[in-house]
Amino acid sequence: MKVAVLGFGTVGFGVYEMLKNAGGLEPGSVLVRPGKNDADYKVTSISQITEDPDIWAVAEVMGGTDPAYEYVSAALCAGKHVVTSNKALVAAYGPELEKLAAENDVAFLFSAACGGAVPFLHNIALAVESDRILSLGGILNGTTNYMLDAMQSRFMTYADALADAQALGYAEADPTADVSGMDALRKIMLACAVAYNMLPDSGLCCEGIESITAEDVNHIQAKGYTCRLVTSGGLSADGRLYAYIEPVLFPANAPECSVLKNFNMAKYTGENSGQIVFMGQGAGRWPTASAVLRDLNDILHGKRFMMQPDCKRVAADNSLCEHKYYVRLSEELADSIPSDRADVYDGTARLITKPMSVKTMHDIAKELRKGGNKVFFAAIGE
Amino acid sequence: MKVAVLGFGTVGFGVYEMLKNAGGLEPGSVLVRPGKNDADYKVTSISQITEDPDIWAVAEVMGGTDPAYEYVSAALCAGKHVVTSNKALVAAYGPELEKLAAENDVAFLFSAACGGAVPFLHNIALAVESDRILSLGGILNGTTNYMLDAMQSRFMTYADALADAQALGYAEADPTADVSGMDALRKIMLACAVAYNMLPDSGLCCEGIESITAEDVNHIQAKGYTCRLVTSGGLSADGRLYAYIEPVLFPANAPECSVLKNFNMAKYTGENSGQIVFMGQGAGRWPTASAVLRDLNDILHGKRFMMQPDCKRVAADNSLCEHKYYVRLSEELADSIPSDRADVYDGTARLITKPMSVKTMHDIAKELRKGGNKVFFAAIGE
Repeated sequence: MKVAVLGFGTVGFGVYEMLKNAGGLEPGSVLVRPGKNDADYKVTSISQITEDPDIWAVAEVMGGTDPAYEYVSAALCAGKHVVTSNKALVAAYGPELEKLAAENDVAFLFSAACGGAVPFLHNIALAVESDRILSLGGILNGTTNYMLDAMQSRFMTYADALADAQALGYAEADPTADVSGMDALRKIMLACAVAYNMLPDSGLCCEGIESITAEDVNHIQAKGYTCRLVTSGGLSADGRLYAYIEPVLFPANAPECSVLKNFNMAKYTGENSGQIVFMGQGAGRWPTASAVLRDLNDILHGKRFMMQPDCKRVAADNSLCEHKYYVRLSEELADSIPSDRADVYDGTARLITKPMSVKTMHDIAKELRKGGNKVFFAAIGE
Repeated sequence: MKVAVLGFGTVGFGVYEMLKNAGGLEPGSVLVRPGKNDADYKVTSISQITEDPDIWAVAEVMGGTDPAYEYVSAALCAGKHVVTSNKALVAAYGPELEKLAAENDVAFLFSAACGGAVPFLHNIALAVESDRILSLGGILNGTTNYMLDAMQSRFMTYADALADAQALGYAEADPTADVSGMDALRKIMLACAVAYNMLPDSGLCCEGIESITAEDVNHIQAKGYTCRLVTSGGLSADGRLYAYIEPVLFPANAPECSVLKNFNMAKYTGENSGQIVFMGQGAGRWPTASAVLRDLNDILHGKRFMMQPDCKRVAADNSLCEHKYYVRLSEELADSIPSDRADVYDGTARLITKPMSVKTMHDIAKELRKGGNKVFFAAIGE
């Protein structure tokens, strides 16, 4: 079966090469920018793919929503199966695309968009058919995990850790999507859509790693904790969905502490299966390409949907989950947060809050920052 | 689709209950021993299942090979799909049963037989379609992991750890299959069959945890290591298969150290995907039942094989892999093993060997034990 590839960057090249050796699949044409079509198999117009009857499926690995949304829609309407690694696309237009796929009786799969080689969404999609997913989440951004690990294992500053990640190609020139938490938040949106057939697209709480300093790391490590950036999602017994991302402090021996460098760890808890944990490379040419190929093989087996064609957009409710938080802020603000105890040194207070909801903690930090105050916070994990 | 269940023990009851709530599936009759048929849906003869045209698939969860082999063969010949959690059955007769399934155009899946809820074989089967598995293995026996964890975290003796595991229902009255390593060795045999379409059934090296003592644990922990019972398999570049099980010592922060209680950790390394790690409950009613249901859903999607119908039996070659080993034996035998250094105390030597092949180390231990000597050994992990 011939597979066309949209985009010929890091992942696109990997997909094209892997297709050459995959049983039952072979590479078709590759869509590139005008002027980049320096070989026979490279085309510059999507219609050269949608109108080609030999093309069985399309692998979209361009990234971004424009023109990816237009191209993927065109491919689905032309009766081509689509596999994508593009989390921004699925977070923005997943329900529409899944519906379009159903109308045209073709598949729309996107497990490469969440966790790279880690087969997270694939296994959630299979699990929900016979089990109820109680919660899900994990470490879903390799760039920030690399930076946190570098700060904690090699005592780097935030700026040096970022520069190191950029030099290694783990972080973009503009690292905002990664360090703000937005990239991983999109992934948990997709995971919720697969697990609950609801795409949370408002009410989300998003705290990345931009506020952490080398001093924070020192203090956290002295207390025996390791910091990771963790996404969480789940459905309450009364049907309310939560979805958020924030730094979390783990005690030594927590499995999260063994997630080093740019690795990912994803997990879900099924009512019957119990907790299932996945670890692996969340990004990179070959790991991501291997996930694209996995989805293509899944289509060969007859798989069609990851979210359902009637997937609904919903508002997340992050007042459901409560944690204690570790908070660093200036001494004079320490009383603004109910806490059990505080270390105060040189004008800086570090405190452990009373249990409070995710929404409350994120709102407090937002409010304090509006006033120009610097705040770092992280949930205390178990 | 109606699913009959063979066996109504811990897992059988779980499968039956889960089938009541699974989309697209429903429970059919349950095969029990004569005299145990105290309800309408319970039958005592396999022909009541094979001759029932309403039965779409059979879940075999009896364990053992007799009469499981006869019953599963009969079900396949009657055109019923079969899913099993029975590793002894698949290790002994997998190739014959897979062939029989192919001849009758039905499925034979067994991911519940390796790792319980951990979706190990399922993901290997999908990965091999587009990637090459370089190696695989992990902690695949929850009983021995529970015992090792109890000895290391709670300083129990071997006898107390075993009694504790038995009291909790993790270990059988006769724990031989678990503590000898045989149970987990069968699982790596299955994983190799799925990954390489070769079932290693001779030349295997099998060292369990029967030789470890509280003193060994003390010494190992003082050196900063944690002991786990680990299976390993893989294919060399020249096509030779290795498969073995032995205790392995891991440095702190290795992911294996965070596998506590009766949890499992399975992993494979794909040429493209890199290393993928899975953790979860490897046994128990609901985790194992959830794996059986996962396979049934996979059949609904069109999946037919995990190993191929032409899967060959091969001899494993464990002279391929080399490690340094930690060995404890009596002082007068210390010179019988080439080593870098030895701690000698009170007539007991503890040494780190020069790198040697798995086969060599297992053969040396076997030879020494023939003479009535007590030996404990564990590979030094990375």
